[in-house]
Amino acid sequence: MNACTRLELGLADCAQETLPDTALALPVFDSRNAATADQWVLEETPVALAYNGITHAVMLATPQDLEDFALGFSLSEDIVRDRRDVFEIDIAARAEGVEVALRIAGSALHRLKEIRQMRTGRTGCGLCGVESLAQFSTPCPVVADRTRVRAAALHRAMATLPDHQRLHQLTGAAHAAGWANADGKLLLVREDIGRHNALDKLIGAMARSGLPPAQGFCVLTSRASYEMVQKAARAGIGLIAAVSAPSALAVRVAQQAGVTLAGFVRNGQHAVYSHIDRVE
Amino acid sequence: MNACTRLELGLADCAQETLPDTALALPVFDSRNAATADQWVLEETPVALAYNGITHAVMLATPQDLEDFALGFSLSEDIVRDRRDVFEIDIAARAEGVEVALRIAGSALHRLKEIRQMRTGRTGCGLCGVESLAQFSTPCPVVADRTRVRAAALHRAMATLPDHQRLHQLTGAAHAAGWANADGKLLLVREDIGRHNALDKLIGAMARSGLPPAQGFCVLTSRASYEMVQKAARAGIGLIAAVSAPSALAVRVAQQAGVTLAGFVRNGQHAVYSHIDRVE
Repeated sequence: MNACTRLELGLADCAQETLPDTALALPVFDSRNAATADQWVLEETPVALAYNGITHAVMLATPQDLEDFALGFSLSEDIVRDRRDVFEIDIAARAEGVEVALRIAGSALHRLKEIRQMRTGRTGCGLCGVESLAQFSTPCPVVADRTRVRAAALHRAMATLPDHQRLHQLTGAAHAAGWANADGKLLLVREDIGRHNALDKLIGAMARSGLPPAQGFCVLTSRASYEMVQKAARAGIGLIAAVSAPSALAVRVAQQAGVTLAGFVRNGQHAVYSHIDRVE
Repeated sequence: MNACTRLELGLADCAQETLPDTALALPVFDSRNAATADQWVLEETPVALAYNGITHAVMLATPQDLEDFALGFSLSEDIVRDRRDVFEIDIAARAEGVEVALRIAGSALHRLKEIRQMRTGRTGCGLCGVESLAQFSTPCPVVADRTRVRAAALHRAMATLPDHQRLHQLTGAAHAAGWANADGKLLLVREDIGRHNALDKLIGAMARSGLPPAQGFCVLTSRASYEMVQKAARAGIGLIAAVSAPSALAVRVAQQAGVTLAGFVRNGQHAVYSHIDRVE
């Protein structure tokens, strides 16, 4: 499974070249209709997540680190609460995308069924998966870890993040989520075309490598949405530093969930929107 | 309904100040925990779209130009194919968000029921609303309009777009979608925290103002996803110029739907990923 599609420059027509798996070669032209350099386009592939045979969600994701993604999604969406409740993750490429089959503990399956029932009982199936206005007031767990971090550490982590964004360097299209220790040293970075997926991959990678969501913080190359704050809170992450703006709803969720939300972390400046006590 | 929340600086604690409707005043601090300037945070509000009493979708959107949004969403999601099939749009603020009630023609309601049935028949309810891997191969209409546009027009429109991004100037958090004529003169711009919503608002605004999706092109301040290409194609838009990257899936959909997709339109450069003939 390729995460990128290499675009062959200089081809005069739209002839398609077969690349491995879901990748596709396409001609690209610059502003003068002339070839300048090779270009890569980032893949987004439908990824179906099935739990004990029940297909629960189909997400568009960059087909890289899908095991991290599956575990992270399961944790951040509150389907499993302990990584040991995921017994097996099978990844299979299909013609239309990727199927990820998870085998989970009975207690987690029970929770999944409750989540699905709750959704069905609400108003019709929303296009973005949100089922009713009420869903947005769902309470989040309050993060217990109160590690304090110096502002300089936020900037250090953000400054070194680009060095680890290989997909973005290649395509200019990938978001990244990173985990840094309290000194701002990056310990893990994951990338995806979707910012929510990048965070899920990071959460999964942390769980798989046994890295606890404490004594550190999460950096994001994107804006911060309320869903990302919810996902982080469920994973136990108490501090999020985003390079761009949060939404007002994200700020409200962060306040309620005990999450410190910093935004516009760039050029030596930043703003903290909630629980300022974690930033020294 | 406020589109922005004004953040009051210098408040020492997290006391909440009641602002009209869903807005909320929150303290913000800079890197030295000191007040520097006032800051606004962009709202995202749950917006429920109900057709003839059936709640079909709940989207997170910036509560501005919601009539454009409702009409544009209806057109770009193929629920209505003619704006005259929308008889009435009622907007009401609720405690949890905004309810938009549309009254549509019987033929459109019939199509909506088919769309909903198609979804129910597929695998479980995906979190991002995509219901099965098969959905991604749904064919799009092929755009008929073949207006040719000079590359300079793309750059002209993109260069003038920031002047019309009032929400973004205020918050740094809003995406914009604009419609320009073949000379690159911007005729309409709409903003939202979500790039898909910004496009839906533009499509709705074009329909409401009787601006046909021909002899011009659409500019986007974001990346281009496959869903945005699908939405544009359904609205009859043949040329999309995005400031950032497209995904590989977006390129494939654009090829199939006869849409010209230009990306990285900035600094006098751009790349065209499909149907190059529309760019001179």
